[in-house]
Amino acid sequence: MGASKVALAKAPCPVARAVDVIGDRWSLLIIRDVFDGICRFGALQRSLGLARNILTERLRTLVAQGVLETRPASDGTAYHEYALTEKGADLFTILVALRQWGEGHLFTEGEQHSVLLDVDGGRPLRRLQPVDVEGRPANYRNSYVRKVPEGVEQEEDRARQA
Amino acid sequence: MGASKVALAKAPCPVARAVDVIGDRWSLLIIRDVFDGICRFGALQRSLGLARNILTERLRTLVAQGVLETRPASDGTAYHEYALTEKGADLFTILVALRQWGEGHLFTEGEQHSVLLDVDGGRPLRRLQPVDVEGRPANYRNSYVRKVPEGVEQEEDRARQA
Repeated sequence: MGASKVALAKAPCPVARAVDVIGDRWSLLIIRDVFDGICRFGALQRSLGLARNILTERLRTLVAQGVLETRPASDGTAYHEYALTEKGADLFTILVALRQWGEGHLFTEGEQHSVLLDVDGGRPLRRLQPVDVEGRPANYRNSYVRKVPEGVEQEEDRARQA
Repeated sequence: MGASKVALAKAPCPVARAVDVIGDRWSLLIIRDVFDGICRFGALQRSLGLARNILTERLRTLVAQGVLETRPASDGTAYHEYALTEKGADLFTILVALRQWGEGHLFTEGEQHSVLLDVDGGRPLRRLQPVDVEGRPANYRNSYVRKVPEGVEQEEDRARQA
């Protein structure tokens, strides 16, 4: 998987790069927990039921990627805590999208699930809906991906260095 | 990982269930490719540079989960193609969220990347922004997750069976 991982990190597709950074179940669930205010190693381990070495490795990677940062414990003890960077906080939209898809498709009728509520009104957020610049609903049928032409990146690099 | 996987599939957290179904790099990239119109085994393999057995396993899982379905090749040959179900098509929002996060945080200034454009105007989609029911921007600081109280699910189940 090593070579593929390098390829993803340098891919001209933003989805591929995002998947390279956070596209595994444990990273996504760690981020979810930090969003929920779980910020210490022991608490994350209890929440996720994850082996120490795997949790350690995932946290290290997320810090190295600039998604999480460590800071001294807020209670003044010698522990440290994990916090979202600005880059990490921007993952909120992805978490909401995962949540809403799960709510819509992965529960039977009447089955209870956790809900994401706004603090002020205590009501669920609106359903995310991709739209074009005119505000019209967008889906995979009325949108398309324009690829980077082969060689463009290299030319741009040369232009910048000149 | 077996036990944890079962736990995720039955978790009361919609994010956990979503991550269980699509939270690995290859599943997410397969789905991205099918959104882009790549729908045959060989073409997916070339696009992803993935071992046949891994691709086979991931495709089988995505079909079993109801995200993809198979259908006869559109050209009348004996091949079959993979297509998004309605459940799979609803992953569009997650793909857009991944793309926009990647665009915003994983490219250097001026570095070229592929872009998602609307068919009509050829312009990038608007940036997804979670909002509350009043339309106010929502983030992890002004929202919170209300968990399912312990035992609620079981009681609901009993009530339905009574």
